[in-house]
Amino acid sequence: MKYAVLGTGAVGQTIAAKLRSQGYEVLVGSRSAGEGKVSFAEAAAFGHIIFNATKGEASLQALALAGEGNLGDKILIDLANPLDFSRGMPPTLSICNDDSLGETIQRTYPRLKVVKTLNTLNCALMVNPSAVGGSHDLFMSGNDPLAKAEVHKLLASWGWKTIHDLGDISTARGTEQLLPIWIRLMGSLGHADFNFHIAQAARAHS
Amino acid sequence: MKYAVLGTGAVGQTIAAKLRSQGYEVLVGSRSAGEGKVSFAEAAAFGHIIFNATKGEASLQALALAGEGNLGDKILIDLANPLDFSRGMPPTLSICNDDSLGETIQRTYPRLKVVKTLNTLNCALMVNPSAVGGSHDLFMSGNDPLAKAEVHKLLASWGWKTIHDLGDISTARGTEQLLPIWIRLMGSLGHADFNFHIAQAARAHS
Repeated sequence: MKYAVLGTGAVGQTIAAKLRSQGYEVLVGSRSAGEGKVSFAEAAAFGHIIFNATKGEASLQALALAGEGNLGDKILIDLANPLDFSRGMPPTLSICNDDSLGETIQRTYPRLKVVKTLNTLNCALMVNPSAVGGSHDLFMSGNDPLAKAEVHKLLASWGWKTIHDLGDISTARGTEQLLPIWIRLMGSLGHADFNFHIAQAARAHS
Repeated sequence: MKYAVLGTGAVGQTIAAKLRSQGYEVLVGSRSAGEGKVSFAEAAAFGHIIFNATKGEASLQALALAGEGNLGDKILIDLANPLDFSRGMPPTLSICNDDSLGETIQRTYPRLKVVKTLNTLNCALMVNPSAVGGSHDLFMSGNDPLAKAEVHKLLASWGWKTIHDLGDISTARGTEQLLPIWIRLMGSLGHADFNFHIAQAARAHS
């Protein structure tokens, strides 16, 4: 399996390093190629599975540069959030409530198999869940069950045990709207080394 | 301490029953008095601390009926959510992103000490956290530290151990925007007996 990672920020670099440590071939795509980075288009053409690790505000432009032909009907793991910092801190969401970035990408590229996950925690924890003690969880949204199963398998290989499949891509509204409390918690806790866990009644545990 | 509970639905009845079991005097206020229920105004005049357990869409009207004079500078524990079911299921939020119901109430009644909490879980768990095993948490938002301390004391008497003080009332945007994922989780888990826990890195634990 070959991977493309769109985005050269901390998130993209962390994901790419993890995939390489597992022996996968990875191309990291950037707006401007050079210095070991390729273009969004070259990365998207190369990968069987594509990570969208661009900033939410830049995601649609990055995917347009990647090119519909290169995206095709591949799996896109979307971990971006539509954060709007234009009015200062804390950011608001540029898309929310009755829509989401995940849905917007899926609508724009109907053949793409968009799987929204990993957007609710910081990148160090994404690839190293054991850095936080006890149980803590991921969420997943997407229209294609086989694509979700494929992504689940990869995440399990990173150590994730509980991944809540919330349903179709419209459920990305729920996880993207976790960002406002995530940002406030980072402020009140004073660090970003935390994650959500869904505690359940004993009789309700699966 | 005397309590007012505005709202005669399941949430209001559950809160009132819990307070009475602790020996507190409680008046439950309703839009239409009668059958053991008093008016919003009579309840608000009676209580030292007021619970807003009305539906989010009805909260501002209920508080108007309660009357600014009766609300005064009391503590209002706001556990309502601005859910909009007018476009079907799942509901959207009628206020979100750059505002919240908690802030709207605080702006409308500046002397009131609004403490937003308990709005992120079902009412059976609100008053009986041990129904869910392991650690799970509450969140709290409000401008008045003493009011938050008073509410914290009451919630501790209900068994709550971890209550994250997120900051001023604007942080209610974070907890109200938890509702979209709460609703999807209720769907995917098939029950409402769950709650959020914030898992932290061992080195970051307070």
